[in-house]
Amino acid sequence: MGLLEEIGAKAKAAEPKLRNLPTVKKNEVLATVAEVLVREQQKILRANENDVAAGREKGMSVGLIDRLQLTSERIEAMAEGLEQIVGLEDPVGEVLGMKRRPNGLMIGQKRVPLGVVGIIYEARPNVTADAFGLCFKTGNAVILKGGSDALCSNRAIVECIQEALEDCGVTKDAIQLIEDTSRETAAAFMKLNQYVDVLIPRGGRGLIQAVVNQSTIPVIETGTGNCHIYVDESADLQSAADIVVNAKTQRVGVCNACESLLVHEKVKDAFLPVLADRLKEKQVEMRADERALPLMKGAIQATEEDWGTEYLDYILSIKVVNSVEEAIAHINRYNTKHSEAIITESYRNAQMFLDQVDAAAVYVNASTRFTDGFEFGFGAEIGISTQKLHARGPMGLLALTTTKYIIYGNGQVRP
Amino acid sequence: MGLLEEIGAKAKAAEPKLRNLPTVKKNEVLATVAEVLVREQQKILRANENDVAAGREKGMSVGLIDRLQLTSERIEAMAEGLEQIVGLEDPVGEVLGMKRRPNGLMIGQKRVPLGVVGIIYEARPNVTADAFGLCFKTGNAVILKGGSDALCSNRAIVECIQEALEDCGVTKDAIQLIEDTSRETAAAFMKLNQYVDVLIPRGGRGLIQAVVNQSTIPVIETGTGNCHIYVDESADLQSAADIVVNAKTQRVGVCNACESLLVHEKVKDAFLPVLADRLKEKQVEMRADERALPLMKGAIQATEEDWGTEYLDYILSIKVVNSVEEAIAHINRYNTKHSEAIITESYRNAQMFLDQVDAAAVYVNASTRFTDGFEFGFGAEIGISTQKLHARGPMGLLALTTTKYIIYGNGQVRP
Repeated sequence: MGLLEEIGAKAKAAEPKLRNLPTVKKNEVLATVAEVLVREQQKILRANENDVAAGREKGMSVGLIDRLQLTSERIEAMAEGLEQIVGLEDPVGEVLGMKRRPNGLMIGQKRVPLGVVGIIYEARPNVTADAFGLCFKTGNAVILKGGSDALCSNRAIVECIQEALEDCGVTKDAIQLIEDTSRETAAAFMKLNQYVDVLIPRGGRGLIQAVVNQSTIPVIETGTGNCHIYVDESADLQSAADIVVNAKTQRVGVCNACESLLVHEKVKDAFLPVLADRLKEKQVEMRADERALPLMKGAIQATEEDWGTEYLDYILSIKVVNSVEEAIAHINRYNTKHSEAIITESYRNAQMFLDQVDAAAVYVNASTRFTDGFEFGFGAEIGISTQKLHARGPMGLLALTTTKYIIYGNGQVRP
Repeated sequence: MGLLEEIGAKAKAAEPKLRNLPTVKKNEVLATVAEVLVREQQKILRANENDVAAGREKGMSVGLIDRLQLTSERIEAMAEGLEQIVGLEDPVGEVLGMKRRPNGLMIGQKRVPLGVVGIIYEARPNVTADAFGLCFKTGNAVILKGGSDALCSNRAIVECIQEALEDCGVTKDAIQLIEDTSRETAAAFMKLNQYVDVLIPRGGRGLIQAVVNQSTIPVIETGTGNCHIYVDESADLQSAADIVVNAKTQRVGVCNACESLLVHEKVKDAFLPVLADRLKEKQVEMRADERALPLMKGAIQATEEDWGTEYLDYILSIKVVNSVEEAIAHINRYNTKHSEAIITESYRNAQMFLDQVDAAAVYVNASTRFTDGFEFGFGAEIGISTQKLHARGPMGLLALTTTKYIIYGNGQVRP
């Protein structure tokens, strides 16, 4: 049995021990992990220094180094995140809608853990504690495969978590780290169907596509977001400008940021020059189509490629459309099914947009930046699903559970 | 653009036209399809004769020929199936649990079609009409790839469906048949992520495994069933015998039939000789472990391989266990996560079995044969999912839908 198979077998063996763990025990473990992380922070920080030094040496970008680097404050934030998970309701065990059939069978659906969850992510050590917290609270065993550049940090964090598990008398196989960060091992991990129930990639487009293409394990595809805002002819233009500026600039490197603006031709003259001034204040590069270009000082000409691009940067593409129907058709052609918004005072156009735009979250008169597990009130987020199976949109604890039918009979046989 | 891509693009183009089709229009189409199928039955039967003659020539088994063959009665049954779907509630458009967030955003989940559903199946022409009916009622476009041995029959049925669609003024691209039944085309179909949202294989283990291994499109794995019944020490033995005989013999070729029996050692002497007589009456071959063997006249010795085998035949494996815990551990090791039953009068053992057995459906004191969309009251069934994502257990119309978040705001921006 190879090392990877061994990890899988251990996770599968841990699964039945976690499946029915009482909520109080799970909360005790999570609180203990939070304590141990803070207590052992010097060990974690030393390990992280190794990763950061190696990263600098190989010329990692400032942004990637920032995501990799830990500080006392960041470790305390990890611990706080776990304490927040303690406070969330445990979804496991709830029985949904038990009904009696004509033959007397009582059939209900019980919420249960998924089993073994695999998480593949990049060099962000904070994901390690966070992913464990969410998977553990929902009774799942978790196998982590983090980016090679964060290996020392991840190992130190996982050691702290395993120490806390053992202190609480729970199997330390509830979390396991794949330390071999080679591509071959990653590929083999994605075919470990015998042991892993679901695989969740967390990271950029390249990582997610690699997992979708290679994995034989069911995948929850999380997300890239080429998000649009359509400013309708009936929009309140002051509010529209506030929303566009917020969705574009409140934070640019995130999947729910606005990347493309569509404007009805009847309001282009009143709206675009004012908006251009506000975007310029925020140093946003504007890439406008032919009709928008003369109205936006400082804008450059957009190309076909812009309509399909998720910039994750201070860049916005702008296009003028003749109708809500044209806006909807454009969005459904170029979007990544993430988050889309219409700004309108028209009942008809609002309903049409909600009905016809194909995306995980469709907004009327609000910023796309709200697509987020915390903003939606889930108290946690494991990612934002842009696929249609199992979970769509922000995923909280419920997305880490499945159901099974439980049936109470009294001797029924099938006629 | 290849032929397959063209089919995909047509389905994707049909999708927005189907997404918000009124229920009355969908029901009109389904009723018209039922009419056309009955009216054009001679055409369908002639096409089917070609398939059956070719099947006989190449030496297809009697069982496969029976599944391939159509008769007037079977075509009428197809039409009735569609009329039943007319009678089912349309799940599309329901808004689930809209709530107001502290910032005033109203966030709800709306049930919507999956989009484009791919179905890969064997030489069973009745699946063609049935799969269309369920996908169409839920607003999905469907691409079918049936077994090559049923191509003439499938083509004739799809022509009838497309005729009915056009009669009702709905795009005929709502259903498309892939006529090239080569393996290469099947493999390419499974990677058509750009156009197909979900792939559902319907058929035997080989087909399902091929789809799971090759598809990059999300798959709903349907199922093989190595189903167990555990007769506890406290069981009502009369009822236990009735349930075992029913679950084994009421219909043997189906995934929810019982394949393996576990018996507590304290009741083996009282139970197994009586059960053996009843199984013999039904010509069931008994493969028993060492302790059961002397108690069951006519039984043969089971081997390790038997515990993991789905016979789909008049064969049952039998094993004596020392406790409910041993029964649960055995089941979780060998089962295919389909349907499992305990026969018991013990509250503790019933609850333990329900909690700890990992399967789509877990029964107390009833036959496993009830795991079925109709028996569960869904009024329809597209298959029985044995995976944990999206849908688990019998899948009715709901499994062919997803949700999207709809958000009503009044100018909210993210602070």
